[in-house]
Amino acid sequence: MSPWPAAAVGDHRDAIDTPALILDLDAFEKNLSSMRAALSGTSVRLRPHGKSHKCPEIARRQMALGAVGICVQKVSEASVFVDAGIPDVLITNQVVGPAKLPHLMELARRARIGVLVDHAAQIDALAAAARAQRASLDVYVEVDVGANRCGVAPGAAAAELAERIGASPALRFAGLQCYHGAAQHLRSPGERAQAIATATRSAVESKAAIEARGMTVAIITGAGTGTFPLERDSGVFNELQAGSYLFLDGDYAQNQLGAADVHFRHALFVLTTVMSRPGADRAIVDAGLKASSVDSGMPAVWQRDELRYGKASDEHGVVTTPHADSLSLGDRLMLVPGHCDPTVNLYDQIVCVRGERVEAIWPVAARGALL
Amino acid sequence: MSPWPAAAVGDHRDAIDTPALILDLDAFEKNLSSMRAALSGTSVRLRPHGKSHKCPEIARRQMALGAVGICVQKVSEASVFVDAGIPDVLITNQVVGPAKLPHLMELARRARIGVLVDHAAQIDALAAAARAQRASLDVYVEVDVGANRCGVAPGAAAAELAERIGASPALRFAGLQCYHGAAQHLRSPGERAQAIATATRSAVESKAAIEARGMTVAIITGAGTGTFPLERDSGVFNELQAGSYLFLDGDYAQNQLGAADVHFRHALFVLTTVMSRPGADRAIVDAGLKASSVDSGMPAVWQRDELRYGKASDEHGVVTTPHADSLSLGDRLMLVPGHCDPTVNLYDQIVCVRGERVEAIWPVAARGALL
Repeated sequence: MSPWPAAAVGDHRDAIDTPALILDLDAFEKNLSSMRAALSGTSVRLRPHGKSHKCPEIARRQMALGAVGICVQKVSEASVFVDAGIPDVLITNQVVGPAKLPHLMELARRARIGVLVDHAAQIDALAAAARAQRASLDVYVEVDVGANRCGVAPGAAAAELAERIGASPALRFAGLQCYHGAAQHLRSPGERAQAIATATRSAVESKAAIEARGMTVAIITGAGTGTFPLERDSGVFNELQAGSYLFLDGDYAQNQLGAADVHFRHALFVLTTVMSRPGADRAIVDAGLKASSVDSGMPAVWQRDELRYGKASDEHGVVTTPHADSLSLGDRLMLVPGHCDPTVNLYDQIVCVRGERVEAIWPVAARGALL
Repeated sequence: MSPWPAAAVGDHRDAIDTPALILDLDAFEKNLSSMRAALSGTSVRLRPHGKSHKCPEIARRQMALGAVGICVQKVSEASVFVDAGIPDVLITNQVVGPAKLPHLMELARRARIGVLVDHAAQIDALAAAARAQRASLDVYVEVDVGANRCGVAPGAAAAELAERIGASPALRFAGLQCYHGAAQHLRSPGERAQAIATATRSAVESKAAIEARGMTVAIITGAGTGTFPLERDSGVFNELQAGSYLFLDGDYAQNQLGAADVHFRHALFVLTTVMSRPGADRAIVDAGLKASSVDSGMPAVWQRDELRYGKASDEHGVVTTPHADSLSLGDRLMLVPGHCDPTVNLYDQIVCVRGERVEAIWPVAARGALL
C-alpha cells in the first residue's frame, strides 16, 4: 500500500493527494435512506452486498438501518466482516477447495454463515467439514434463473439438492439463491421486467418442487441495484442483495429508470490531477487502470460534460478537451468509475468528504480478500 | 487483504488456495538471464520497470544481474523501493501536485531520484521544492516520440525545457525520456521497427537541439519489452526500461517476433479452481475481474488450448469447455493474464513455485501505491 495516506481527517478537499477514492457522504447517506424508504412497509429483507464496498464501517451503517446481515463472495471477505462484528454473513458463491473449508467452518462457529451450492459434491464436502469441525451453517441452493452462470436448473434439480442438504444434520437448508446478474444492466425497464418475471417463475417452480418433498423454503434471495424493485414487488422474493446502490456505478446510471425504480446518486469518485497538458485537445491525468477499473467502460468526468476520459493506461488517463483553456496543469477532476466494485478493490482507504472537508477515512478492510 | 495467505513456503502446489498469483521461478529466472544475454557486450544500461512487479525481492534480483536502478511511475512506489534499499529510482512520470513534492524531495535526500517533465511549470515547482528541502534530483525531459500521450514535441521545445532545468542549481538535467508506449504492442516486427525508427529520429533531433545550446545529454532512456532490441541497436538510446519481460503478458505473446527479438516465457499465472460445473459446455472458476485484469483481454488457459476463458465478472470466470469430461468440480487451472501489471496490483503476495513446491512468498510491497 502507499507509505502515506491520501488525506487526513479535517483536511480541505483541495489538500487530498491523488488519485484518491472519494465518498461523498451526503450522496451516500441519501442513497442509504432511499433504499430504506424503498423497502419500508414491505416484509422484504435487505441483505446488501459487501463485495461492493469491502468496508466494515459501511456494513455497520447498513445494519443500523435495518439490514439483516450482509452478502460477500469469498470466505476471506466473510472473515473480515465477522471479525468486525457483523453477525450474519451470506457467501453468495460456491465454496470449493479443501483449503477453504476449514476457514469456512471456523467462521460458522462464530457467526451465522450461509453458502450456496449447485452440485451434490459441494454438499457432501460441506457436510463432512461441518461434522468434523462441529459447525453448522446455512446452505442455499443456487438456481440458474437466467444469468447462465452458476446454478442448477429450476424445479426438480433444485429439489434434489435441497433434500440432500436436509439429510445432513450439520447443514440447514435455508432457501434459494435466485440472483439474475445479467438482468441488472439491461437498459430498458421492459427488458428488466421480462427477465425478472422469468427469474420469478423459476423461483416459484423450484419452491414448489421442494415443498412437494415436504420441505420448507424459508428464504428466496436475490436482486441487484438494477432490478430490486421488481423482486421486491414479486410476492416471491423475500430478501434483496443489492450493493451498488450505495455508490451508483457509471454503468448503472445508463439504465433507463421506470416508474418503480429508485433514483440513486453518484457517491463514489476517483479524484485525479492533470499532470500533463501536452496539447490543446488533450490532458493527461494521474488516474489510469490501477486507479479506476475499466472493465465496464471508461470513467466519466463528473460535472464536466465537455471533457471525455477516452483512454486509460496503467497510471495515465487521456482526457480529450475541446480547447486549450479547458484544463490546466494541476487542475483536479472527479471521475465516476464505470464499475465501482473492482475500483474500490484497488484502494486501501476511502476518503469520506462532506462539503469541503474530509470527515472520515474508512479502511477498505476486505480489499484483496480473494480467497 | 486476505486474513490468511494463499500458501506457505514448502507447500505442495496442490495445496495453494485460490485464486493465487503464481510465479514460475524457473521461467522467471530464464527471462532474467535472457535479458542479461540480450544486453551483454553492449554499452546499453538496463533500468527495468518496477511498476510491473512492485516487488523489492524482484528489484534486488534485477540489480544483482546488473540493472543500474529501477523505474517506477509514482512517488509512493519509489518510496517503497528506496526503503527496501534500491539506491537509484527513476519516476518515469510527471509529478504534479503540492502534496507530492515534499515526499519526492524527502526521497531525493536519501537516494538518487529522477523525474520527468514536459512543462515549464513542473520545472519551477520542482526547483522551488528542491531548494526549500535542500534536495537535488535528476530531471529528464519527456519527448513525445509517437505515443501521443505525455511529452513535448522533439527539438526546440525539448531544448527549452532542458535549459530551464539547467538554470536551477537544485536540479540536474539528466537526459531525455523517449519511451514509445504505443509501439510495444504493434504486432509485426516491421511496424515496431518503423515506430522506433521515428522515435529514434525524435531523440536525435532533441539531443542535437540541446547540444546546440551547449548542454550535454547524458542519458536517452526508453523502450519496453515489445521493442527493446530496436532501441538497444539504435546507437542513440543508452538505457532501457523494459519490465514485462519478467512475466510475459498474454497480450505481449501475441506480438510476432522478428530475428532480433528475444523469446521470453510466461512466468506469471493466476491459479484458479473450478467451483461450479453447471453444464457440459461451461465451467465457472473462482478468478474473475478482481483476480486478473481484463483491460487487455481475457486471460488464456495455460496448456489447455481446448478451454476458453470467455467472460469475467467480479469473482467468477466463465470457461467454455468442449464436453462434459473436459473439467470437473475442484479442478485447477493456470491462467495467463492478458496484462500482468494491473493483475499483480490486485495481490498482496506472489507465490513463487519451483516444480511442485512453493519456494518463496514475496510481498507485493508497492501494491496500491497510487500516490
